[in-house]
Amino acid sequence: MRQLINELAKLPSIGEKSAMRLAYHLITKDHGEAQKLSEAITEAKQRTALCERCFALTEQEICEICLDERRDRRLLCVVEKPADLFAIERSGQFRGLYHVLHGLWSPLRGVSPRDIRIEELFKRLDQKTAEKTPIAEVILATGATVEGDATALFIAHHLQEQGVKVSRIAQGLPKGGELEYADEVTLGHALEGRRAVSG
Amino acid sequence: MRQLINELAKLPSIGEKSAMRLAYHLITKDHGEAQKLSEAITEAKQRTALCERCFALTEQEICEICLDERRDRRLLCVVEKPADLFAIERSGQFRGLYHVLHGLWSPLRGVSPRDIRIEELFKRLDQKTAEKTPIAEVILATGATVEGDATALFIAHHLQEQGVKVSRIAQGLPKGGELEYADEVTLGHALEGRRAVSG
Repeated sequence: MRQLINELAKLPSIGEKSAMRLAYHLITKDHGEAQKLSEAITEAKQRTALCERCFALTEQEICEICLDERRDRRLLCVVEKPADLFAIERSGQFRGLYHVLHGLWSPLRGVSPRDIRIEELFKRLDQKTAEKTPIAEVILATGATVEGDATALFIAHHLQEQGVKVSRIAQGLPKGGELEYADEVTLGHALEGRRAVSG
Repeated sequence: MRQLINELAKLPSIGEKSAMRLAYHLITKDHGEAQKLSEAITEAKQRTALCERCFALTEQEICEICLDERRDRRLLCVVEKPADLFAIERSGQFRGLYHVLHGLWSPLRGVSPRDIRIEELFKRLDQKTAEKTPIAEVILATGATVEGDATALFIAHHLQEQGVKVSRIAQGLPKGGELEYADEVTLGHALEGRRAVSG
C-alpha cells in the first residue's frame, strides 16, 4: 500500500493526499477495475514507442503525422512534450510536422541541450541528411516560460547559422484576456508584438 | 442598511454576500472609518474629471500624461477604461499617449460606437483638427474578448480610410503559459501571430 501511494504521488499534479485517496479507491473498489488499470499501464508501456523521426508517441516505427502525405512538410513545429503536440492538434491551426524535444534546456534542473532531442532536430534540418521535402520554416512552440524561452533561443541561434528560417509563437493576451488583469510581462509582450491591422 | 448592501453589490466583482460582509464591517467598526470612506468617495467624485484630450481620469483639465512633453506623441494607445491605462503604465512598456474609450462596442448590451469616445478619437486623428505632432501609429489595446476585438476592428476600419497606421496588440501565450494548458483559440493566435526570430 505504501509503495502504491509513493508511486501514485510521483505522477504529475498528484500530491500525497490525492495519492492516498486514489490508492484506497483502487484497493477497496472491485478487483476488476484495479486489474484493468494495471494491465492498461503495462500494455500502453509495452506498445508505445517514440516515432523515429519526430519522437512523438506512436505504436508504429513512424507516427501517423509523419506518414500523413496531406500535411505540409515544409513546416516543422518544435514542442517540449507529447501533451503540447496534442494541444496544438486540438487547436486545428497547424497542418505541418512536429519535433518533440522531450524536455527543455534547464540549467537549474541539470538538463543540458544534450539531454533532450535537439541534436536529432538539427540532424533533421541538415541539408545533407534531410528528408526529401526541405523544411521552409521551423516554428518554436515551447511554452512562454523561462526554460521555454531559453530553449527556443538556443535552437534559433543554431538554426540561423544553418540558414533555416525560424519563428517563435506569439506571446500576448490569451483568449478572453482583459488588460486590467494581465501581468506586466504579458502586456509588454502584447505591446511589443503588436501587428499591423490590414483592412 | 439594505440600501448600503444594494449599493455595494453594484460594485464590480462584489456579490450579494461580499456586500453584506462589507456593509456589516462598515457599520459595526468605529464610526471614523466609515465616515472617512464616505468622504473619500464624495471628494474623489467631485475632484476627478476626464481629461479633455484623452479622457483619462485627472484632477486637471488636461491629464499629466497628455501634458508630459517627454512622452512620444507619435504613438497613441487606445484602451477601454482607465484601469487598462494604469495596467499598461505599470508594464513600463509604453511611452506614448492614450485615448480612453470608456466602453466597448457591444450590440448585446445595447452599446453602440456612438455611446463611447470613438468620435472623439477620430477627431483627434483628423488632419484638420489634429494636435501639433501628428500620430504615426494607433495601437488598439482593447482586450482579447469578443467586444474588444469588435471595437478594434471597427476603429481600424475607419482609421484606415483616414490613412492612419493601425496595429493591434498581440494575442498569444501569457507569461508562464504552457501549451498543454492553453485553450485552442489562444494556441491558434499564438501560431498565427508567430514572429521571425532574428539572430
